[in-house]
Parts: sequence; C-alpha cells; structure tokens
Amino acid sequence: MRIGIIGLGRMGGNIARRLMRAGHECVALDRSAEAVKALAADGAEPAADVAALLAKLPQPQVVWVMLPSGEITEAMVAELAGAMRPGGVVIDGGNSFWKDDVRRGRELRAKGLHYVDVGTSGGVWGLERGYCMMIGGDEETVRMLDPILAALAPGAGEVTRTPGREGRDPRAEQGYIHAGPVGAGHFVKMVHNGIEYGMMQAFAEGFEIMRTRGDGALPEGERFDLDLADIAEVWRRGSVVSSWLLDLTAIALAGDPKLDAYGGNVADSGEGRWTIQAAIEQAVPANVLSAALYARFRSRQEHPFGEKLLSAMRFQFGGHVETKPG
Amino acid sequence: MRIGIIGLGRMGGNIARRLMRAGHECVALDRSAEAVKALAADGAEPAADVAALLAKLPQPQVVWVMLPSGEITEAMVAELAGAMRPGGVVIDGGNSFWKDDVRRGRELRAKGLHYVDVGTSGGVWGLERGYCMMIGGDEETVRMLDPILAALAPGAGEVTRTPGREGRDPRAEQGYIHAGPVGAGHFVKMVHNGIEYGMMQAFAEGFEIMRTRGDGALPEGERFDLDLADIAEVWRRGSVVSSWLLDLTAIALAGDPKLDAYGGNVADSGEGRWTIQAAIEQAVPANVLSAALYARFRSRQEHPFGEKLLSAMRFQFGGHVETKPG
Amino acid sequence: MRIGIIGLGRMGGNIARRLMRAGHECVALDRSAEAVKALAADGAEPAADVAALLAKLPQPQVVWVMLPSGEITEAMVAELAGAMRPGGVVIDGGNSFWKDDVRRGRELRAKGLHYVDVGTSGGVWGLERGYCMMIGGDEETVRMLDPILAALAPGAGEVTRTPGREGRDPRAEQGYIHAGPVGAGHFVKMVHNGIEYGMMQAFAEGFEIMRTRGDGALPEGERFDLDLADIAEVWRRGSVVSSWLLDLTAIALAGDPKLDAYGGNVADSGEGRWTIQAAIEQAVPANVLSAALYARFRSRQEHPFGEKLLSAMRFQFGGHVETKPG
Amino acid sequence: MRIGIIGLGRMGGNIARRLMRAGHECVALDRSAEAVKALAADGAEPAADVAALLAKLPQPQVVWVMLPSGEITEAMVAELAGAMRPGGVVIDGGNSFWKDDVRRGRELRAKGLHYVDVGTSGGVWGLERGYCMMIGGDEETVRMLDPILAALAPGAGEVTRTPGREGRDPRAEQGYIHAGPVGAGHFVKMVHNGIEYGMMQAFAEGFEIMRTRGDGALPEGERFDLDLADIAEVWRRGSVVSSWLLDLTAIALAGDPKLDAYGGNVADSGEGRWTIQAAIEQAVPANVLSAALYARFRSRQEHPFGEKLLSAMRFQFGGHVETKPG
Repeated sequence: MRIGIIGLGRMGGNIARRLMRAGHECVALDRSAEAVKALAADGAEPAADVAALLAKLPQPQVVWVMLPSGEITEAMVAELAGAMRPGGVVIDGGNSFWKDDVRRGRELRAKGLHYVDVGTSGGVWGLERGYCMMIGGDEETVRMLDPILAALAPGAGEVTRTPGREGRDPRAEQGYIHAGPVGAGHFVKMVHNGIEYGMMQAFAEGFEIMRTRGDGALPEGERFDLDLADIAEVWRRGSVVSSWLLDLTAIALAGDPKLDAYGGNVADSGEGRWTIQAAIEQAVPANVLSAALYARFRSRQEHPFGEKLLSAMRFQFGGHVETKPG
Repeated sequence: MRIGIIGLGRMGGNIARRLMRAGHECVALDRSAEAVKALAADGAEPAADVAALLAKLPQPQVVWVMLPSGEITEAMVAELAGAMRPGGVVIDGGNSFWKDDVRRGRELRAKGLHYVDVGTSGGVWGLERGYCMMIGGDEETVRMLDPILAALAPGAGEVTRTPGREGRDPRAEQGYIHAGPVGAGHFVKMVHNGIEYGMMQAFAEGFEIMRTRGDGALPEGERFDLDLADIAEVWRRGSVVSSWLLDLTAIALAGDPKLDAYGGNVADSGEGRWTIQAAIEQAVPANVLSAALYARFRSRQEHPFGEKLLSAMRFQFGGHVETKPG
Repeated sequence: MRIGIIGLGRMGGNIARRLMRAGHECVALDRSAEAVKALAADGAEPAADVAALLAKLPQPQVVWVMLPSGEITEAMVAELAGAMRPGGVVIDGGNSFWKDDVRRGRELRAKGLHYVDVGTSGGVWGLERGYCMMIGGDEETVRMLDPILAALAPGAGEVTRTPGREGRDPRAEQGYIHAGPVGAGHFVKMVHNGIEYGMMQAFAEGFEIMRTRGDGALPEGERFDLDLADIAEVWRRGSVVSSWLLDLTAIALAGDPKLDAYGGNVADSGEGRWTIQAAIEQAVPANVLSAALYARFRSRQEHPFGEKLLSAMRFQFGGHVETKPG
Repeated sequence: MRIGIIGLGRMGGNIARRLMRAGHECVALDRSAEAVKALAADGAEPAADVAALLAKLPQPQVVWVMLPSGEITEAMVAELAGAMRPGGVVIDGGNSFWKDDVRRGRELRAKGLHYVDVGTSGGVWGLERGYCMMIGGDEETVRMLDPILAALAPGAGEVTRTPGREGRDPRAEQGYIHAGPVGAGHFVKMVHNGIEYGMMQAFAEGFEIMRTRGDGALPEGERFDLDLADIAEVWRRGSVVSSWLLDLTAIALAGDPKLDAYGGNVADSGEGRWTIQAAIEQAVPANVLSAALYARFRSRQEHPFGEKLLSAMRFQFGGHVETKPG
C-alpha cells in the first residue's frame, strides 16, 4: 500500500521504516525538514505540506497521524478532514483520549471519511520487535488496512502458542487486533498502560522492600544485603513474575545496581489517569491502578501541604513538634 | 485511693495532677529528680526508687506505669513484678503493644499479681478535658480501680446524650470503658489511633485538593484561590465532617494559613502499624488505614529506590529520560 | 426577602421552612401538588409553574433551585434563564458538578443574570441545626443574598471559638462562606463529601477490625468480644476521633449493635467521584479518598470478573483450585 | 548426590523426580504410603520413618523438607535436629516465614547442623520447566549443595541474555541464587510473591475495567464489547505488559472467556501478608502490594460489618435508606 505518515518522531519515523521494509510506500510529512530528509534517505517520498502529501496518495487516501496527543493531533485531524477526498481514512496512531476518538469518528463520518484509532505499544523497540496494536474503527476499513497492520505487527514470533484458540481471530497471534468501533483501540491501549503502571509499581515496592532490608538499623541476623541485580535475573527463569518489565529491570540493575543515574521524578501520561476515570465512571474498584498513579504524582512533589497539615494536627492534639528548624 | 505513679513525662505528670485534684494521693517516681520535685510541689509524695515507692503504698499496692512503650516499660513491669506483694496491681497506661500486655498479664497472674492495660487518649489536653480511657483487665481489679478511673475520665460533660443507651454500661458516658480482658484496652486504643490516622489523612488529601485548585496553570475560571482557614471554620458548623480534628485544623490554619511552620515529615507511632498487622492477621481489608500510614512513611523519605526503578524501566522500554542532570 | 423555591423535597422543603421561620417569604413550586400544599400550609405562597412563580417575585428576582442534580437541574436553570428579567439570580443549592456551574454561570452572565452555587451540608438535621453552606458567585450578588444565607446557616451556636480569627470573614463562624467565584461553592462542598467518605471508611475499617477480633478461630487470650456501642460512646469524650460521624455511629450502634437492619450495599453520589477526578486533574495523591470510594463500589458487587481472573491465574500457575462447586 | 526428601506432595514429589532425572539418588518419606510407593516406582528408595531415612544417607546427611509451612515443618525440623549427625544439612524448601528460618538456623547451628532455606517458584510447571530458587544459608553449605540446586534450576534456557552481567554470579542465569544468610532465601521468595499479588491484581483491575465497558447502561458509541481473550493474546506480542501471568491469562480466557468455572473466592498465603509486615517494619509505603492482598480478603467476604456501618451513618445523617428489605 501507499500511505501518508504525518509526524516523524521516534515512533512515527520507525513506523514508516518498518512499513517500507515490508514493501509499502510512505509519503512523509513533518514540521522538521531534517526528519523528512532522514526518512527520505531511507526511501520515503517527502511532502512539504498536507496538500502535497494528499496529492501524492491514491484513492482512498490513507494517512497515519503520529503526533503528540491533544491539540496538535486535534488540529491535524481537523485539517485532514477538511482536505481529504470522500472515502479517505485518517489513522490516529498516537495516544489520544478515546472519547476524543469517538467524537472525531462521528465528525469524519459526517464528511464521508473514516477514522481509525490505533493504540500502539512497543516504544523504542518497535522497529525491530514490531508494534503491538489495538485498533478501533469500522470493520471494512480495518480490513482494508490489513496489509499495513500486519507489516507493523510483531508477528507470531517465538511466543508459545496458547492452546484452545482454534476458531478465534488469528490476528491476535500476529500481534494486532480489531478491538471494536472507533475509540475501542485507544480504550484498550489505555487500560494496557494502566495495568503497566500497576505492574511497575508492584516491582517498585517489592524491590524497595528488598533494598531496605539491608538497613543498618535492623537487628543483626535479620538484615540482608541483597543483590537486586541477581534477584531480577534469577526471577526471569521459571518464576511467576517473569515478564518483559522484569527483563528490563534486570538490564537496568546489571548496568547500574543502585540506579544512581536516576533522580526518581516519575512522569505519568494521560493513559494512566484516563484509566482511573474509566474505573470511576464504571464503578470499578481500582485501588492498585490508582495507587500506582498516585505514587508517580507523589514522586514529583516536595512535601505537599497535606503532610504539613498532618504535622499541624499532631502538634495541636499531642504537642508533637514537627516544625521546621527555625 | 493512694497510688504510685512511675514516669512523670507530659502524660504521667498530668495524670498524677488530675488524680490529686480529685483527692487521690500519688507517690511519684521518675528518673528525673526535677520532674519528681515539680510534682511534689503539686502535692505528690516523692519516691527515690521502686522499693521506696512500693513501701509507701497500702495493700493492695497499685502502681500506674506511664513510660515510653517497649523496653523501658517492659523492664519496669518486670521489676515491679519481682518486688510487689501478692494482690498488687500494675497498670500500664502507656502505648504498649497489646500482645505484650497479654503476655505480661499471664506472667503477673502466675505471681499472684494483676495487670491492667489502659489505652489513654487525650494528649496535652487531658489535664483539663480528662482522659478517654479503654481498659483491659479482670473484672474485679478494674472495678476496684474505679475511683481513680472515674477521676481521670472526662465525665459526661456537655456532650449530647446518645438515645437508646438505657441499660448499658454507664461508664462509657463518663469517658472510660472496661473493654475486656488484659490486652483489650490497648487493642481498642490501637484501633482508635488507626482510625485517627485515616481521618487525618482524609483531611490532608481534601485540603491538598483544595489548595492545589489555586494552581496558576489551571484554566481561568476553573481556578479557585480558596481560603482554607475559613473553610475549616465553616465546616465546624453543621457539616458532616465536623470533628475535633477539624477544630484543631481550624486553629492551626487561623494562626498560620500556609502552615509555613511545618516541615512535613510526619512521624508515626506503633499503634498505626499494629492496626494494620491486626487487619492482616484478621483478613480485614484496610486500604484507608494502610494508605494513611504509608503517606507518613513516604513523607519522611527522599526518593525511594523504587521510584528510581520506575524511571529506569521507563527509560528501558520507552527511551523516556528521567535521569539526574549529570 | 421574598424568594422563589423550586423543588420541595426533603432538602428544599426544609430550607423554605427555615427561611420562613426567620421571617422571609417563599414562593414555592414543585411537580408534586401535595408537596406545594404542605408547604403552603406552613406559610408559603404556592406557584403553579415557573412563570407564575416569577410573576410573584420582586426585582431582582431570586430563585433557589433545589432539585436532583444532572438533567433535571440543568433543564430548570435553562428554563429560568429564558424567563427571568435581567438582574435576576438563580441559586443552585443542589449537588451539581462544579464545572457545570462554571458553564452555567457564563451562560447566565451573557443574559444579564447571576448564578450562585451553594453547596449545602446538613441533611435531615438542617431544619433544626441549620445548613452549613459554601457559596460560589460574584461578590455583589452573594452580599445581596446575605439575609437568606444568614437565616439558613447554623449560626455561631455553642461551638468553641477558634482563637486567632480576628480580622477574618465573620460569616465562617456563622456557618457559611463565600468560597469564591461561580463553581467554588460546589467545589468546596464536593471536597467536603470526599473527606466525609474517607472519614466514614476509616471508621468502617476500624470497627471491622474490632468486630473481627471476636472471631472464634483466634487463639484464646487474644480474642476479644468488644462492645462496639460502648466503644463508640466512650470515644465521644476526649478522644482524638470525636466527631459528628462518631456521634451518629454511637446512636446507630446503641439501637442495633449488630447493624442487622442494614444490607451493606453502600451508595455513592457524584461528589465522591468528582473529588477523585479533581485529584487526578491536579496530580494530587489521594489514596485514602479513592479507597473510600472504591469500598462503596465493591460493596455493591458480587464477585467481579477480576476476582475470577485471579483464581484462574492461580489455577494455571499453581494448580490451586478455586472453581465453583460443579 | 544422595539426598533425603520428606514430603512428597505436588511439589516434593516432582522435586525428587527432577533430581533423579539428573542422576541424583533420593530417599523418600511421606506419611502417605501411596505417595512413597509412587515415587519408588520412579526410582526413589523408600523410607518408613525419619530414622530409616537418615540411616540410608551418607555423611554429611542432607535432607530436603517439603512440607506445609507452619507447625508441620516446625515439628519435622525439630525431629531432624534431634536425630541427624553433626555436619548434617536440613533444607526447608517450603513456604516458611523467614524469621522462623532465622531462628531455626540459630538452633541447628548450636547443634553443629546446617540449615538452608530455599524459596521455590515454579508450581506445577516446575518438573518440566525447572524451579526458580532463592537460597539462604552459609556460603560453604550452599556451595556443597550446588549439584542438586543446579539440577533443579531451569537452566539458562532460551531466555535472552541480560547485557552487562560479566563478572556477576553465573548461577542467577541458571535460575538459582544464593541470596544471603539463613532466612534470605525465603525473604526474597516472600517478596516475589508480594509482587506477584500486585501484578495479578493489576491485571484483574484492568480486565474488569475492560469487561464493564460493555455494560448496557453506558451510552451508545461509548460502549465496547471487548474480546478479552484476544486482548490477552495480542498483548503477549510486543506490549509492555507481556509476562508469564499474561500468558496464563490468555490460556484461561481462550478456554473459558467468561471464567464461569471460577467462583471468585481468592485465597492468599502467608507470603503476601508477610510482605506487608516487612514493608511496615521497614517503613516502606506499599499501597499496591497491600491493596492486592486486601482485594483477596474482600473476595472471600459477604458484606463486612464495616459496610453496614457506612449505611448506618448515611441513614443517620442523610436519611438515606440502605436497609435490608424487611
């Protein structure tokens, strides 16, 4: 297929490259001329602006938008919606809020266009490993996109086959699924990230408990100086917590056992927050996913006011002094 | 009654004073000669050591121990157990772990002595307001102590009477209860503190949410600079959250609206931790009480290792850079 | 003042009554003719519809809307906005989402009208105790409404005065505050409810820990059959957790110590959920308030799918059988 | 090596089998004659009691105890300690509490014996996949046991090598580590299980959020009937949450998409609880690991008393009726 790619950052550029490696043609647009040039060197056809890009695409025009979510993606989808010919397909492969997808899907449908949301996992490893994709959109459009989706997906690889999947959608085993109507792709990707936060925090708490067991204040005989890098490594073999996140933990700890390179201010993106919003909207208890998000919030704060309030109350009722040295 | 008091710190000294105001006689012992002298000036009979104190007490000897929990209390109870005459009563009014009470009760019983654990709430306000007490021990001993317990308790005061209490133990309305056998007093006090942590953290989070609503980055029209001191004050009248902790919050905020005096490192005592241990032992879900305890743990830390591990994983799978500036 | 009241449910009817007791005049409207009649018997002037109600009000028209939040309130505010004369004031005393207030305020302002949001705490006790109110709106309008707000508020009562409030807004001590611009009233009330959930859950967990300590499976000597009604009562006097919620707990337990009347399906209203949304929007860690909300969600569920998934995983990796009896 | 195995349940029997496959000799003891017979059929030498078993072992005697943790293991270790010749080694491969290990280690050392605690992960898959082991004990003893540990471990297998491990203990890559002195093995295994709980609950919450998105009460266009089996499958390829637990989830959902076979009462073992105790002892905030444990507690309850208390309070302050139908 021939497809337009808008946004050639870390994700977009590699998506284009992986498509081209599979024999697809990419028309590339980015506000950075350099990024366009670099991709052109790898075989893409450069475009100067949206009009030029669309002009280089066959009917129906298919454009993959890979831009920062929020206003930038919103503006680009609107621009495309105004410029594309009927039957065209806008794919949002970024991290949009799924309710924005639902709205955009409705807006584009009114103009005879198709909107497809693709939640994409794989990060910096995607070019080589392939991208795990969760896709929302109408049946026919998603089927039409199959060649490019199959090219981007990791494929079956060496992952052990799950027994009992006879008769099920074979795409899942190739690493992509049609999750449902518009919005469903990003919804599933959102929950994926929510789970990811929870798993990461489970590891964070567990390793913290192991590290602090070496605390010199603990009684002799109950104090262990544990080798966290070796523990991460050994758990990779046959333990219940074996996982890609554990593999990455083992890599990080082998290279920097005390993680001295890191400051500990941990960012969070929209997905983690939206997952909790969905939980609340659906009345699902989500203590683990919430706590994982809150741990990141707290990691970026100095003492919040609320902690001072605790000290203030303690001072008032008990005379406990936790004031700052004057 | 004539009673020995060992430990004349903030709590012990005022307990002695409140007893003497009610006409009881106190024989006082403390490792600080000055504390003993100060209390003697208020009418107590000083004692130089345990033997001297016991010598000044009638049969059965009654001694109120008000020392820091842990080894110090443990040693004193052991010393008393070795020195008191049969029938004597050791009262532990401190913050002992209730399972230590159970064990001590057994040990003293074997020597013909009685052990009574008194969980005491009231802090620095107790001398004037009285002490709310939860008592563990055998029926007869607790009944024998009634005069001093009634003297220490707040009394009915101006608290509205609860309807439907006819036929119930009238002591509860005077501010003290016989909670059960040895250990039950400190167990109930422990849970009291666990709840206290939870309530405090509920206020802390709520006020933090109100304070951060004034954040300049929020959109105009959705940003409120709320007067937290006035809010605490207004909630004292007719709102569902009205409480003594709210009264104290109002006092603290009226005097120091930004709580600049406080650093935000919040201590925790044994009771909060033991409450969670009891929850776990009894398979009770206790997310709120646990989270309140953990918020205090976190308040005393710089970035834990676990947060760095989150950054390390994010770097590994997504190339997200959260390293420290080199 | 003469004021219109729309919505004569438990809250609205009593608000009207409290206003009339203070000498204000109420024009009353409700879709239930009976409710109108009942209030008319107490001195209100009945109105058959919005037009009739407005016709009976002097300039500027002031209408207090006390309807279920959501669509019903939305529709009524819209109807009033279309029918009132310039300068009129719409008061939303219900439980609206504060961002809806912000929007409505903007819409009414465009029509020369004023919008005031009043967060009202006090429930069924408000008629006698007065209503604790947090108010959002423009300065001048709120000042104009002062007579009715002061009449509804609890007043200073017998609550101990907070030291250090000299020079602060005296309204807070009367039980009402002007929290800020439109939306601020419901925002503060929302957080109030969030805190309320947290405090309630702290009590719920604490009492559960005390109740389950009587479990027959626990070892003799470490098992306590605690009298929860007496414990609630004693804590009302001098303990740190003394609060209105504790007073209510004492009442409930005195009448029904095992709470056999209750099923345990606990509802939640919008405020608890919106509080978490605000926390997330503002990046505030709110583990306690979230956990309190989730406990209610869980209380209304049979086994969620997620719990079955835990069993399924345990079966898969460990052969642990937690299947249903066949 | 020739080694005694006591306890031929699911774990113990397979450990013996895996050892014999590797050429080691096992002397087997179990209170079930049938279990002994079955293992003898696979090549083990049966023993009728501890004395007989010890008599069949060379110096130094090495016995692997694989019994239910708690009293049964305790009694067996004590019996062995009384019967073994100096220099003997008792290996506890079960799920003992690590502080019990520390104590037993001390006790056996006083008798000239060695104690080794082996935390073993692998469950029903261990016979084929090998057992991931975390070992506590003195350096020399653990080195002496290396042949049997290496035989039980999974080996390097096809797991990608972690870069940067040059110079580190090669055993970790074979699937076993010497974690530290006595107790360290079970401590690390305990934390492993704590993390396992957290990861499982992260999946449970995430899948619950996806499942409930199909709720018919949600607005059309925002409601998705997601195929959870396909989602689990697709995430196995290239996503951040890929893990063994996800593999097992995919297997479970492929066979029973609604998990109708499961009741949802989820057990918990000691490790999850002890992990929280360690967190509290070490002042580590562990909201995720705690919440995961509490979700299991709650899964096994009908409405706890605490939930009824919430309803009771709501009734008292708001007249909200959540009583049981009479």
